[in-house]
Amino acid sequence: MTTALVYRADEVTEYDDLAAARAARGTTWVHAAGVDRAEMERVADAFGIHSLSVEDVFNGVRPKTEEYDDYTLVVVKRATLRGGETTFDEEISDVPVGVFVGSDWLVTLTPGPADPIDRVRQAVHSGDERLLHRGADFTAYRIIDVIVDEYFALLDEIEDDIETVEDAVTTATDIETLEAINSVRRELLSFRKLAWPTREAVGVLARGDPAQVDEETEKYFRDVYDHLVQLVDLTETYRDLASGARDIYLNTLSQSTNEVMKVLTVVATIFIPLTFVVGVYGMNFGSSPYNMPELAWPYAYPAVMVGMLLVALVMLSYFRGQDYI
Amino acid sequence: MTTALVYRADEVTEYDDLAAARAARGTTWVHAAGVDRAEMERVADAFGIHSLSVEDVFNGVRPKTEEYDDYTLVVVKRATLRGGETTFDEEISDVPVGVFVGSDWLVTLTPGPADPIDRVRQAVHSGDERLLHRGADFTAYRIIDVIVDEYFALLDEIEDDIETVEDAVTTATDIETLEAINSVRRELLSFRKLAWPTREAVGVLARGDPAQVDEETEKYFRDVYDHLVQLVDLTETYRDLASGARDIYLNTLSQSTNEVMKVLTVVATIFIPLTFVVGVYGMNFGSSPYNMPELAWPYAYPAVMVGMLLVALVMLSYFRGQDYI
Amino acid sequence: MTTALVYRADEVTEYDDLAAARAARGTTWVHAAGVDRAEMERVADAFGIHSLSVEDVFNGVRPKTEEYDDYTLVVVKRATLRGGETTFDEEISDVPVGVFVGSDWLVTLTPGPADPIDRVRQAVHSGDERLLHRGADFTAYRIIDVIVDEYFALLDEIEDDIETVEDAVTTATDIETLEAINSVRRELLSFRKLAWPTREAVGVLARGDPAQVDEETEKYFRDVYDHLVQLVDLTETYRDLASGARDIYLNTLSQSTNEVMKVLTVVATIFIPLTFVVGVYGMNFGSSPYNMPELAWPYAYPAVMVGMLLVALVMLSYFRGQDYI
Amino acid sequence: MTTALVYRADEVTEYDDLAAARAARGTTWVHAAGVDRAEMERVADAFGIHSLSVEDVFNGVRPKTEEYDDYTLVVVKRATLRGGETTFDEEISDVPVGVFVGSDWLVTLTPGPADPIDRVRQAVHSGDERLLHRGADFTAYRIIDVIVDEYFALLDEIEDDIETVEDAVTTATDIETLEAINSVRRELLSFRKLAWPTREAVGVLARGDPAQVDEETEKYFRDVYDHLVQLVDLTETYRDLASGARDIYLNTLSQSTNEVMKVLTVVATIFIPLTFVVGVYGMNFGSSPYNMPELAWPYAYPAVMVGMLLVALVMLSYFRGQDYI
Amino acid sequence: MTTALVYRADEVTEYDDLAAARAARGTTWVHAAGVDRAEMERVADAFGIHSLSVEDVFNGVRPKTEEYDDYTLVVVKRATLRGGETTFDEEISDVPVGVFVGSDWLVTLTPGPADPIDRVRQAVHSGDERLLHRGADFTAYRIIDVIVDEYFALLDEIEDDIETVEDAVTTATDIETLEAINSVRRELLSFRKLAWPTREAVGVLARGDPAQVDEETEKYFRDVYDHLVQLVDLTETYRDLASGARDIYLNTLSQSTNEVMKVLTVVATIFIPLTFVVGVYGMNFGSSPYNMPELAWPYAYPAVMVGMLLVALVMLSYFRGQDYI
Repeated sequence: MTTALVYRADEVTEYDDLAAARAARGTTWVHAAGVDRAEMERVADAFGIHSLSVEDVFNGVRPKTEEYDDYTLVVVKRATLRGGETTFDEEISDVPVGVFVGSDWLVTLTPGPADPIDRVRQAVHSGDERLLHRGADFTAYRIIDVIVDEYFALLDEIEDDIETVEDAVTTATDIETLEAINSVRRELLSFRKLAWPTREAVGVLARGDPAQVDEETEKYFRDVYDHLVQLVDLTETYRDLASGARDIYLNTLSQSTNEVMKVLTVVATIFIPLTFVVGVYGMNFGSSPYNMPELAWPYAYPAVMVGMLLVALVMLSYFRGQDYI
Repeated sequence: MTTALVYRADEVTEYDDLAAARAARGTTWVHAAGVDRAEMERVADAFGIHSLSVEDVFNGVRPKTEEYDDYTLVVVKRATLRGGETTFDEEISDVPVGVFVGSDWLVTLTPGPADPIDRVRQAVHSGDERLLHRGADFTAYRIIDVIVDEYFALLDEIEDDIETVEDAVTTATDIETLEAINSVRRELLSFRKLAWPTREAVGVLARGDPAQVDEETEKYFRDVYDHLVQLVDLTETYRDLASGARDIYLNTLSQSTNEVMKVLTVVATIFIPLTFVVGVYGMNFGSSPYNMPELAWPYAYPAVMVGMLLVALVMLSYFRGQDYI
Repeated sequence: MTTALVYRADEVTEYDDLAAARAARGTTWVHAAGVDRAEMERVADAFGIHSLSVEDVFNGVRPKTEEYDDYTLVVVKRATLRGGETTFDEEISDVPVGVFVGSDWLVTLTPGPADPIDRVRQAVHSGDERLLHRGADFTAYRIIDVIVDEYFALLDEIEDDIETVEDAVTTATDIETLEAINSVRRELLSFRKLAWPTREAVGVLARGDPAQVDEETEKYFRDVYDHLVQLVDLTETYRDLASGARDIYLNTLSQSTNEVMKVLTVVATIFIPLTFVVGVYGMNFGSSPYNMPELAWPYAYPAVMVGMLLVALVMLSYFRGQDYI
Repeated sequence: MTTALVYRADEVTEYDDLAAARAARGTTWVHAAGVDRAEMERVADAFGIHSLSVEDVFNGVRPKTEEYDDYTLVVVKRATLRGGETTFDEEISDVPVGVFVGSDWLVTLTPGPADPIDRVRQAVHSGDERLLHRGADFTAYRIIDVIVDEYFALLDEIEDDIETVEDAVTTATDIETLEAINSVRRELLSFRKLAWPTREAVGVLARGDPAQVDEETEKYFRDVYDHLVQLVDLTETYRDLASGARDIYLNTLSQSTNEVMKVLTVVATIFIPLTFVVGVYGMNFGSSPYNMPELAWPYAYPAVMVGMLLVALVMLSYFRGQDYI
Repeated sequence: MTTALVYRADEVTEYDDLAAARAARGTTWVHAAGVDRAEMERVADAFGIHSLSVEDVFNGVRPKTEEYDDYTLVVVKRATLRGGETTFDEEISDVPVGVFVGSDWLVTLTPGPADPIDRVRQAVHSGDERLLHRGADFTAYRIIDVIVDEYFALLDEIEDDIETVEDAVTTATDIETLEAINSVRRELLSFRKLAWPTREAVGVLARGDPAQVDEETEKYFRDVYDHLVQLVDLTETYRDLASGARDIYLNTLSQSTNEVMKVLTVVATIFIPLTFVVGVYGMNFGSSPYNMPELAWPYAYPAVMVGMLLVALVMLSYFRGQDYI
C-alpha cells in the first residue's frame, strides 16, 4: 500500500491509475506541475474537483480559500523578483498554486515549475512518512508554509533595494534615482497585493472553518497566519521608508537649486558693484576741475583698488555670516 | 414550444404576444434594447416588473442588485472609452443594462444598443439551446460575464495611456503632459466608480442571496466576482502608477529649473569677474607713477589675458567638480 | 371631511382647531413654515411631539431619522448656494425641515420659507387628492424627494464653478485662482456634510425600519436613497477634479518661474560674455608692440563684431536645442 | 430631608456625614472639586466606588463611559484654551471630571476647580428643585451638557484664530505664519482627541445601555450626542480650512519667488544688452577707416541713444505682453 | 509550602523539580529569562505548553493573546531606544516576553534579560506575598503593567527628540535635519507597530474572555488597556507634530531660496542700470557738437554721480516697500 502518489509532468511513470490512487487507503497526494490545462482537468476529474476551481488556478486569481462540498481549495502564489536590465528594473512575478484539500487526499496543481513543493515532496519520499500520516491538512500546511517562507526572502531582496536607494538619495539628483524609488514602491505594492489576500485565505484555515482542517492543524495555520501578518506589517514599514527616501530625494534637489543660487548670488553680488566702480573711472569726462579730478590724484588708483578689496571682503564676511558660503 | 423569445426595437416581428411568452413553458428571455421608456414600461408590465425598477434602469443608477418578491433586478453598466479630439481627451461613457431574473423568465432592458448581449443572443439562436435550458439565472450570468469581460479590454486601453504618459514624463515639462496624467486619473476614478458597485452587486449573487439563483450558478457568479475583485485591484495599481508618473513629471520640471539655473550660474560666475578685470584696465587714471603703471608694461596685455584664461579654467574645473557641467 | 389641513404663518385662516384636525379622519398634514419657536411648540403639542424634537429642528442639527413611540422624525435640509461679492465667494446656506410622520398625520416644521414644499402642497390643493390618500409616509416621501432634487441643481452650479476654475488654472497664476479652487473645495465639503447624513437618514426609511413607513413606500424611499448615493459619489468625483485643478495651478506657477528663468538665462548668457569681449578692447594698454596690437589692425573692428555675432548665433542654436527658446 | 448634599473642598460645612447622605431618601449629589486624592478616596469609599475608577479620574484618562455593578462612571473633560506669549502660542488644557451615576445618588469628582458645575449646583440651591427630583441621571445630563456647551465656545475661539491666519496667508511669507497655521492644526488635533471619545462615551448613554439611565433621559443624552457629532464635524471642516490656508501660504511664497525672479529678469534683460552696446563704443580701436568710423559721425551719439531707447521700449512691451510687469 | 517558585538562567538552584512545582498548592510562577530554546522547551513541557507557543515567543511574533485549552498565552514586548552614533540614529529594539497564564500557575519566558520582571519578582520575594495570593492572573497583570509603563518612558524620549527637531527646523536647512525628522517618524512607526497589537492583546484580557482571568482582575487589565489607548493616541499626535516639523523644514528651505533670490535681485537691479550709465560716458564718440557734448560740461561728473545716487535711493526705497530688504 502506498500512502503517497506523486504526479509530475516529467515523472509520468509514478502513477498507474488516478482512480485507484483516489481509492487507496491512507492519504493520497497528487501533484501536477507545469502541465497544460487538459492534464489538469484530467487530474481534477479523478477527484471530483469542479472545473471552475481548475480555471481559477490556471487563470491566476487572487489568493483565496474556498470551501466546496467535498474539498477546500486554497489558492496561494509563489513569488520571485524577476530582474530587468538595470538594478531597479525588477518586478515581482508570481505563479499560482492550487491546493485542494480533501478528507484523505490532497491535490496540488500549478502551471509553473514544481521546485518549492519539491522540498515537501522529498520529505515524503525520503522516509519522512510522518508527513502524510499526519493527514492531508497537515501536508497542505507544510506546502503553504514553504511558499510563505519564500516571501520573507523576497522581502529581504526588496529591503536591500531600499537601502541602496536610501544611500543614493542624499547625493544624487538624477531622474534615475526617483525612478528607482518608484520601482521599489511598485514592488512593495505588488507584494502587498499578494500578501494581503493570502493572509485572509490562511486566516480562514487558522479559524478552522473548513471541515478538512482538524483542531491540531489549525494551530499550525495560525502560525502561518502570524507570519503573514508580520509580512504585511513589514511591507507597510518599507513603504514608509520608501516615502521617506522620496522626501529626501526631492529635498536634495531643492537643496541643489538653493546651492546653485547661492553661488550665483555671491559672485554676482560682489562683482557687479565693483564693475560699476571701475566703469565710473572709465568715463571720459572733460578736464573741467569739477569733472573727475580724482583721476589725476597721485595715489588714486591704489586707493580705488584697496577700497574695492575692502568692499569685497566686507561682502564676503556678510555672506559667510548668512551661511551662503 | 419556443424556449427563447427575443424582443428588439428593430426586430418587432419576433414576438406576437408578451403575455403568451410569459405563460410559455421553459425559460423565456425578452430583451429590449435602444427603446424608449414607454416600450420599456410595456414589457415590464407584462412580467409584473415594478415601474420604479424600470425608472432605475432608464435614469442610470449605480450598479446594484435588488431583490423583489417575484424577481431580482441586477443593474450593470456597459462601458466604453469615448475618445476626444486629442489622445488624452477621452472619458468613460457607460450605458445601464437592467437584468431582471424571474423564476423561469429573464427580461433585459437597456436604453443603449444591443451589441454585447448579441453574443449571448446568438448563442441562444444558433442551436446552443443549452444556455436557456440551464435556467434564467445561468443566462443572466452569461450576460453579466460578457459585460464584465469588456471591462478588461477597457482597462487595457487605460493601461496603454499610462504607458504613453510614463514615457512622456521624463522629458516633457509642458502643461499638456500634466493634463494627460490628470485625464488618466479621471478615467481610473470613473472606472473604479463603475467596478466597485458592480462588485457589490455581483457579490450578492455570488452569495446566492436571491431565491432565483440556484447553488450551481452561485459558483459561476463567484467567478465573475473574483474577476471584479481583480479589476478593482488593478485600478488601484494603475492609480498608483499614475501618481508615480505625476511625481516624476513634477520632478522633471524642478530638474529643468535646476539645470537652467546651473547654466546661468556657470556663465555669469565666470564672465562677471573677468568683465570686472577688463573694466579695471579701462579706467582713465592719470600718469602719476602710482596710477596703473602696469598699463605701460610691455607684456601687460598678454599677461592679463593669460591670467583671465587661468581664472576661467580654474572656475570651470570647480564647476565640473560640483557637477554643474 | 377634509383630508388635508395646511397651516402656514401667513395663511392662518386655513385651520380652526389643531386638535380637531388631529382627530379628523383621513390623513392630516400640518405645515408650519417661517414661524417662531412658540408657534412651532403649539403645533407640536397638538400632535404629541416631544419638545426636544422641535428644538432639534429649530437649532439645525444634522439630518437624521429618529423613531419615537408615536411618530418618526426625519430632519432634512434645504440647501442653496448664496453668492458673495465675487463669483467664487459663495457658500452653501441650509435651512432645516423637520418632517414628523405619524400613523395618519404628517407635521412639517421649518424656520425657513415654505417654497419647495409648496410644490407638494399645491398638488394636494389642486385636486391631486391621491397624494394624501396614499398616506402620510408617501406624502413625506414626496417632500423629501423634492428637497433632494434641489441638491442636483446645487451640484450643477458647483460643477459650473469647477469648469470655470479648470479653464483658469492653465493660464492664471494669481492668488485669486487658488482661492477660487479652495472656495470650490469648501463648497463640496459643505455639500458632502449635508448629503452624507441625509443618505443615512433616508437609508433608515428605505430599510423600512420605522413603523409608519409601509412596504410599498419603502421602495420609493429606496429610490431617493439611490439618488443620495449618486450625489455623494458625484461629490467625491468633483473633489478629485478640484484637486487636479489645484495640481495644474501649482504646476502653472512652477512653469512660469521656469520660463522666467529661461528668459533671464538666455539673455544673460549671451550678452555677459560679449560684454566681456568689448570690455577687453576698452582697456587702455600702452603702445608696446605686445600690448593689444590688434587695436591698430585695419579690419579689427568688423572682425570682432562678426566674431561676437557668430558666438551669439552658436549660443542661440544651443539654447534652441535645449528647448529654452 | 435634604435631596441635595453638595460637598466642595472650600465648603466643608455643608455635610456632616457621607454615609448618612448616602442613606438619605431622594437623590443625593456629592461634588468634590479641587481636592487631593485622599479626599477623593474618602468620598468614593462612602458610595462603594472602586478605587481604580478614582485613579482613572485623577490620572486623566480619555473620556469614557464604564458600567459597574452599582453605578456608571462617565469621565468627561473640561477644556480651555490656555494662551501663550504670542497669539498663536496657545494650547488646549483639559481637566477631567468624573461623573458617577448611581440609582439614587450622584458623585462628581474633579482635581480641577468647580466652576462649570457651579451653574448646575446653583440651579439645585436656588429652588430649582426639579433638577434633583428628576433623578441622578438627569442631573448628570445637565452637568455633561454644560461641559459640552463650553466646547462650542472653545471652537469659536479656534475659528477666530483660523480667520486671522486666513487673512495673513495671502500677504505674509514669514515663518511665523506657517507656525501659526501649525499651531491651529495642533489645537484642532487636541480638540478632536477630546470630542471624539466624548462622543463615544455619550453615545453609550444615548443608547440607554446603563441601568441608571431611564428612557426619558436617554432622549436628552441623544441631544448631547447630536451636539458632539456636530462638534466633530466642525473640527473636520476647520482642519480642512487650515489645510487650505497652508496651501495658500506655500503658494504665496512660491509666488513671491516668482515675482522676485521677474523683477530681476526684466531689469537684467533690458540693461545687460544695452551695456554691451555702450561697451562696443567704448572700445579703443584705431583710426583705420574700417575701425568704428561711426564714432566720428556727427549724429552718432544721439542715434545710438535713441536706438537703445527703442530696444528698451520693445522689450518692455514684450514683458508687459508676457505679464511680467 | 512555597507559593512562588522562580526559575532563572543564573539562579538554577532555586527549584528542584518543575513537575513538583507544578503540583504544589498555591500559585506557582516559573520565570525563564535569557535562556536558549532547549531550556524553554523543558519548562514548557513541564506545564503542558504547546511547542508552537514557545516558538512564537522565541521568533518574536507580534504581541497577541491566544487562548489554549489549559492556559492563555499573552505575548508582549519590552522596548528600548537603542542609540546610534549620532543623536538621531536611534531605533527601537524590542524583546518578546511570553506570559503563560494557567489556572494556578504562571510561566514567563523571554530570550532577553530578566530586569523589568525583576521588579515584580522582588515583590514576591520580599514578603509581598499578597501578589501571588491574588492569583496567576493578577501577577500577570502586574508584569504586563510594568512593561507597558516602560512604554511611557520610551515615548518621553521620542518626545524629546521631536522637540529638538522642532527647534532645529526653523533655522537649519541641511539634509541632516530632514534625516532626523525621518528618523523620529520611523521610531514612531515602530512604536505604533508595538503599541497597537499590544492594545488588542490586552483588550482581550480586559474583556475577560480567557477563563483564567477573573472578574476583579479584568478591571485592572481595563486600566492597562486605557494606558495603551492613550499611548496610541500620543503616537498619532507625535506623528502629526513630526509632519508639521517637516512642513516647516521644507518651508525654511524655500524661504532661504527666496531670500537668496532677493539679495541677488536687489544688488543686480540697482547696479546693472548704473553700470549701463557709466558705460554710456565711457563711449569714445568724436568731437562733433552733437556727440556727447555733456562730457565737456563743467559739472557733468558730479551731476551724473548725484543722478545715479538718486536712482539707487529710489530703487532701494521701492525694494523696501516690496519687503525685499
